[in-house]
Amino acid sequence: MLEKIHSPEDLRKLPLEALPGLSSEIRKRIIDVVSVTGGHIASSLGAVELAMALHYCFNTPKDKIIWDVGHQAYAHKIITGRNDCFETLRKSEGISGFPHKDESEYDPFTVGHSSNAVSLALGLVCAYQRLGAENNPKIVAVIGDGSLSGGLCFEGLNNAGHLKKDILVILNTNELSIAPNAGALSTYINKVLSLPIYNRFRGSLEGFVSSRIPKGSRLIKIANKFEEGLKGLFIPGIFFEELGFRYFGPLDGHNLDLLIPTLKNIMNLKGPRLLHIITKKGKGYPPAEKEPVKFHSTGPFNISNGDPVDKNKTKSYTEVFSEKIVGLASQDKRIVAITAAMAEGTGLDKFRDLYPDRFFDVGIAEQHAVCFAAGLARAGLKPVAAIYSTFLQRAYDQLIEDVALQDLPVVLAIDRAGIVGEDGPTHQGVFDIAYLRSIPNFTIMAPMDAKELESMLSFAMTLGKPVAIRYPKGTIEELDSKRCNKIELGKAEILSDGDDFAIIAVGTMASTCYKVIEILKKEGLHGSLVNARFIRPIDTDVIQKVCSKAKRIITVEEGVLDCGFGAAVVEATGLAVTRIGLPFEFIPAGKRKTLLEKYGLSESGIANTIRGLMGR
Amino acid sequence: MLEKIHSPEDLRKLPLEALPGLSSEIRKRIIDVVSVTGGHIASSLGAVELAMALHYCFNTPKDKIIWDVGHQAYAHKIITGRNDCFETLRKSEGISGFPHKDESEYDPFTVGHSSNAVSLALGLVCAYQRLGAENNPKIVAVIGDGSLSGGLCFEGLNNAGHLKKDILVILNTNELSIAPNAGALSTYINKVLSLPIYNRFRGSLEGFVSSRIPKGSRLIKIANKFEEGLKGLFIPGIFFEELGFRYFGPLDGHNLDLLIPTLKNIMNLKGPRLLHIITKKGKGYPPAEKEPVKFHSTGPFNISNGDPVDKNKTKSYTEVFSEKIVGLASQDKRIVAITAAMAEGTGLDKFRDLYPDRFFDVGIAEQHAVCFAAGLARAGLKPVAAIYSTFLQRAYDQLIEDVALQDLPVVLAIDRAGIVGEDGPTHQGVFDIAYLRSIPNFTIMAPMDAKELESMLSFAMTLGKPVAIRYPKGTIEELDSKRCNKIELGKAEILSDGDDFAIIAVGTMASTCYKVIEILKKEGLHGSLVNARFIRPIDTDVIQKVCSKAKRIITVEEGVLDCGFGAAVVEATGLAVTRIGLPFEFIPAGKRKTLLEKYGLSESGIANTIRGLMGR
Repeated sequence: MLEKIHSPEDLRKLPLEALPGLSSEIRKRIIDVVSVTGGHIASSLGAVELAMALHYCFNTPKDKIIWDVGHQAYAHKIITGRNDCFETLRKSEGISGFPHKDESEYDPFTVGHSSNAVSLALGLVCAYQRLGAENNPKIVAVIGDGSLSGGLCFEGLNNAGHLKKDILVILNTNELSIAPNAGALSTYINKVLSLPIYNRFRGSLEGFVSSRIPKGSRLIKIANKFEEGLKGLFIPGIFFEELGFRYFGPLDGHNLDLLIPTLKNIMNLKGPRLLHIITKKGKGYPPAEKEPVKFHSTGPFNISNGDPVDKNKTKSYTEVFSEKIVGLASQDKRIVAITAAMAEGTGLDKFRDLYPDRFFDVGIAEQHAVCFAAGLARAGLKPVAAIYSTFLQRAYDQLIEDVALQDLPVVLAIDRAGIVGEDGPTHQGVFDIAYLRSIPNFTIMAPMDAKELESMLSFAMTLGKPVAIRYPKGTIEELDSKRCNKIELGKAEILSDGDDFAIIAVGTMASTCYKVIEILKKEGLHGSLVNARFIRPIDTDVIQKVCSKAKRIITVEEGVLDCGFGAAVVEATGLAVTRIGLPFEFIPAGKRKTLLEKYGLSESGIANTIRGLMGR
Repeated sequence: MLEKIHSPEDLRKLPLEALPGLSSEIRKRIIDVVSVTGGHIASSLGAVELAMALHYCFNTPKDKIIWDVGHQAYAHKIITGRNDCFETLRKSEGISGFPHKDESEYDPFTVGHSSNAVSLALGLVCAYQRLGAENNPKIVAVIGDGSLSGGLCFEGLNNAGHLKKDILVILNTNELSIAPNAGALSTYINKVLSLPIYNRFRGSLEGFVSSRIPKGSRLIKIANKFEEGLKGLFIPGIFFEELGFRYFGPLDGHNLDLLIPTLKNIMNLKGPRLLHIITKKGKGYPPAEKEPVKFHSTGPFNISNGDPVDKNKTKSYTEVFSEKIVGLASQDKRIVAITAAMAEGTGLDKFRDLYPDRFFDVGIAEQHAVCFAAGLARAGLKPVAAIYSTFLQRAYDQLIEDVALQDLPVVLAIDRAGIVGEDGPTHQGVFDIAYLRSIPNFTIMAPMDAKELESMLSFAMTLGKPVAIRYPKGTIEELDSKRCNKIELGKAEILSDGDDFAIIAVGTMASTCYKVIEILKKEGLHGSLVNARFIRPIDTDVIQKVCSKAKRIITVEEGVLDCGFGAAVVEATGLAVTRIGLPFEFIPAGKRKTLLEKYGLSESGIANTIRGLMGR
């Protein structure tokens, strides 16, 4: 059936009874493709029926659906004419892993960061009303429970409720898992009432019952009945009602017979409305249902058992960070760790498992993560906040006001700094050098390999000042050289000596350039190589010394050139420098290796640039 | 009595009965000083009893009070040993207008931006617990209703409720004013129930009553009784209960007989608690009570009537923006305006009054403001978001992800860009050039005078791309020259021609440098002057042409030099340039003029630098 669906128009022609069959086909398609390309499979499998129901009910593309984050939108893509090219998911020149404005008229925005959907949707609602279209498009924002932890989402809901405009928000939360002894009643309540006030009452009741009444007693059954009665005392969704929304739900988000009539009823009501649906991450693919966290974002996997197709043999920076921070924490009890809903992604899951009392997952709330870290540091702890470069953008003001201005020893472990790859322009970590470099009091480092990341982390813990360490996605190649890994504040390292040219490189680019030096040496070009280590403060002494004899000076960095590391070298030294790095544009999706090549940051690319400079 | 209060210890020795007398003295002191220095008087007068009660009950400085924003903390300053020097409020080298960590052990953080208090407080709570102090300090965060609109505050509350730590949040909201027909009952309910769900019920009821029942009818009285009964149906503060807080209140925040016993009861309870108090802005000073918005932040005023001591005669950039945007809006109905709770400060109050349907005050929620603007633009409107430079830092991620990446025609009117003055380091607008310059797709301008701001606004409205226009606080001096004010994308303007040196200046510094050129001409030094107009894109053609003959090249800007405009000139042209601007540090409080002189950005300072460069 799926091959006949070229647009939502085709979907809308189907009878309601045909939809469950189609949902199975879409699910199979997602599993088949993502097992090859990798991607955000768990969330997308959870939102198959939702995507179908929305396009079935709403008049897309005139009506607009805004998927928060957007990693749950694969079914949406398949329905909206992108099934034929779905194999190119997340590939260079292929279709994006997220809604993308240049890809389809069904994607009003290019998205990727959490919690902005309500604000964007409210903007559309107000604008269409203002423009006075006879028949205003209907606007739907789809958010998850994760989106709700981000303050931006709250700001949007708060404003939408106040303005009383016609906006529909779908809140898609996951089945709770009150695991072992969950009976039918618990599961039911779980579905119907997942709100904190109810759960806290329930918690008290359970505590009361279990402490005073022997297990298995008939009283427990009575208590359970009483518990069911409690439901009536609480208006479900009162939290949203307080914010000015009419709350509907919760209902089973996989049941199209329920979802479609409900949507049809709600879609034409006035004012801010919130429909709460409950879905299962990974729905329909048992390995993903079982381990939704592992299947949140996955590489290629074996469909039969869900095992990864090729396990990386070399270590990633994330793994090195993960192990080192646990080691440091074992020696210094003041070290605590913070993540914004990325324990696995940042490698802090190990820390969490070993030191649960010293670990804080604050949810998707980077502003709070950084501000909270400042509070922890002020009282004498040594907080490490591990946040992806692109997501740390959201805490820029807190970096300035709450960390730098207070001059507090917060350590930022900035993962995914540089080219991130398949997730595309919303996720590339290319701005952090620029946005950190203009904040006073920050020391900024970038390691060239695993040992250096370890040394930098140790060093950061002793500095007693704001520190940022940036490192990329991807694996590490260790250099063979007998290097001195002692880190001293603001000191660069000379890796090679030669009079023809000088490279000042930072981060993994120093490793790449080490090989460039070897390549060019064979061609009779002898260059110096400085591993800068510090983006701030810059080691002007070493750089000036090394460059004094060089005919050409080149800086190399994995970040946007404007306000970048090379610019810092120029600002600090006044030297005439050729700067190699990323151009002033948004970097599209593609494999990390491919993109580094495309932008001239591979060994051969850098070598070519230098050959050109040297007139070869 | 006040002269005997040198610390909270002295306050705590007083009997409860003595406190109201002291509060009057503190109030008088605040009014007397702020009438001379200017400052945030309305909020501080509203929080006199709160500051007293907190220091009376809590064991400060061991226990910590974190004032959100901090502009309400004058009484806190007076009580905590800063009465003697209170006359130096907001002056250079004087005491800060906000809590400041280097000023007093009673100020745990230097604050100034909204909505971070709960996060900082939660950090302290978790850290002290972790550090295992025998007798943990108690931590109080004081927030206002404004703080609540910021998503960061929500993130903090959400995390605090989840962690179940011992944190006390004081929510200080203002008396609502259901103005003309407000009787005693309304006032009472107003105080007791200020929550949206109740108010919406109340609104429906009122609508029902007034539409169906003749005015003055006995039925209205019955309805009012019924209305009172409604109270019982709603748990006050259920919004906070949902977030995991125990809610207490609301109570009269000026009644120390109520406030102190309540605090003593609540302070020793466990878990997250929120005490809601109601206060009056400007309490005790009738002109401020009457016009709290005008007295939110005021210059020196005449105590007898509240009139400003000296009205500025020359125009400010804010006024020019205010008038021009209204003019543009009259010609183009697609222009809409957005503020984050700063209608008066940004000059958008005029727009609000003329075009209420096209004006959006989203509250203190800069992230949402920018994201919402992106939504408006996507549907075809021309949104102008007027936000102070320092507060726009909070929307950095939205500038990248929601505006620049989408390439949407959002116009940012960045007020208070550069030295802001008396509000100190948290408010200086010195980072915006740096943080905007590395974002692709943005056009960035800075006007040198009023006419140019007008031209730039007109130009921005036609560009159809993301635009930022930055302009400082303070008044404008118009140049006498017959200047061409037509703005062309990326085109600089040559204001003066001379072979000895060349100045490339941006924004008001171009005006200042115009006078520098005149000064130095009289000394026989003939310089060129380029008014850059565009920070991005840089007019490399004009700059290179003008600089080709100059012996020295100087860039001048009002912003931090690192990643600044001068750096942009160097990056774009490779010229050897002397960059004049602000140093890489946090800029303290002081008058704008004084600080510009201090940092060498006055006419004489710039002239001196050039003389030095020219060997004079």
